[in-house]
Amino acid sequence: MEIFSVGNELLIGKTLNTNATWLAKRVTSLGLTVKRITVIGDDVDEIAEALQEALRRKPSFIITTGGLGPTFDDKTLAGIAKGLNRRLEVNGKALKMVREKYEAYLKVGRIERVELTQPRVKMATLPEETEPIPNPVGTAPGMMAKLKGTCIIALPGVPPEMEAIFNESLAEVVKKEAGKSVFFETSIYARGIMESNLAPLIDRVMLNNPHVYVKSHVYTKSPVKVEGQKSHIELHFSTTAHDPETARSRLDAAVSHLSQLVRKNGGRIRT
Amino acid sequence: MEIFSVGNELLIGKTLNTNATWLAKRVTSLGLTVKRITVIGDDVDEIAEALQEALRRKPSFIITTGGLGPTFDDKTLAGIAKGLNRRLEVNGKALKMVREKYEAYLKVGRIERVELTQPRVKMATLPEETEPIPNPVGTAPGMMAKLKGTCIIALPGVPPEMEAIFNESLAEVVKKEAGKSVFFETSIYARGIMESNLAPLIDRVMLNNPHVYVKSHVYTKSPVKVEGQKSHIELHFSTTAHDPETARSRLDAAVSHLSQLVRKNGGRIRT
Repeated sequence: MEIFSVGNELLIGKTLNTNATWLAKRVTSLGLTVKRITVIGDDVDEIAEALQEALRRKPSFIITTGGLGPTFDDKTLAGIAKGLNRRLEVNGKALKMVREKYEAYLKVGRIERVELTQPRVKMATLPEETEPIPNPVGTAPGMMAKLKGTCIIALPGVPPEMEAIFNESLAEVVKKEAGKSVFFETSIYARGIMESNLAPLIDRVMLNNPHVYVKSHVYTKSPVKVEGQKSHIELHFSTTAHDPETARSRLDAAVSHLSQLVRKNGGRIRT
Repeated sequence: MEIFSVGNELLIGKTLNTNATWLAKRVTSLGLTVKRITVIGDDVDEIAEALQEALRRKPSFIITTGGLGPTFDDKTLAGIAKGLNRRLEVNGKALKMVREKYEAYLKVGRIERVELTQPRVKMATLPEETEPIPNPVGTAPGMMAKLKGTCIIALPGVPPEMEAIFNESLAEVVKKEAGKSVFFETSIYARGIMESNLAPLIDRVMLNNPHVYVKSHVYTKSPVKVEGQKSHIELHFSTTAHDPETARSRLDAAVSHLSQLVRKNGGRIRT
């Protein structure tokens, strides 16, 4: 599956892309593999072009975040419509969802009357032949388009709204697609050994544990000579399996093998 | 220009992509525009494919981060070589840089002898016809490939190393490409007005200030009804101009126009 993050604020380095990280973690934990994350600006043509490129890679899902709100710079649905060569139209179900939100705001006195102004109707304007997804905590509905082989889902960029829609309406769908797959991961920490000396040890462990992926991450708190300092290195183990027992025993075997090799080569291990 | 972030840790949601945000902010402040950020895994074919796709978009720069280290999962240079259809070869200049690092580590007693093992030589193995870039704080050099129209730069994923190489060797190059362009931005904060009511006001301001981009961001600390709460909305103004005075006066005019409109519509403004 692929994640699309839409928003100029991401491309000017104003905002950290926490939405992509949240979604990637959540989707991975449900057993699906994220193959790519694409960040694009608030531009209909860019969104359309990136979507068409992604569709050629035939991912099971494309989940977009951002660009569903009422302002002119919210362009994700127009971009998806263009990318799919579909018209944008006011979606009856979506308009009902939006109207009910404003009726609720009226009831609690937050607005004085329910007016479906153009910016509010915009939030209910979806590409034709798509479905709105209810937004339990905000106003703009999400959107789902089922194509042959790929399900496109558009979520708002405000993190609590994105998370709530995913948890309420999408986690089950993603889990179903992932089938029985489970993703397990664990880390240990090595000191007193350089990354270049760890490399052949990791190779041996991966050769002996073909279903486990081992990745080293060098950590440093200040701009220092990392390799030279024999600094603290995280060894991250992960595997995707059909049941938790297999996943766990695979990780245990790989962790124990690598720990042994690191110690033999003068390093220390902290779990 | 485009940014590539390479690393499975980003695709499983283990690591926030702070490198892309740092680079995007830095490059934008130097006057260049980031059009896309692509995150891919540690996979030679994925990197090669994404690179070829990006080259078709003809960006001035493609800057990659991650995947330059000594371990088998560091695959960025192999991916770039494949994407450019070039052979990988030990680069004499790069090997000298790597050797000098280990000689320095020997001098301060961090290693007992200088051995250029295979994982260490790997850090000096670049696609043919490319240049290594010195790494002032770590071991693995960066890489620069000048193609017709696009300059490809590969930086390590360890943040202090990536930042140091950019600041020492690349900031000038990027600034030169950007020419006289400067990027200015500022924000004001609105309360007491819904985003859907702000939308037409922003439209009017952008129509009257064609070189200024205004974007609204809804902030909320908890999963609450964002639109309904008339919550705190950031209004972010940005512009790229040929001189700081023009940039500043454009922003001033747009900020003052929108502040006036928000107040007329019952909202409050905080700068």
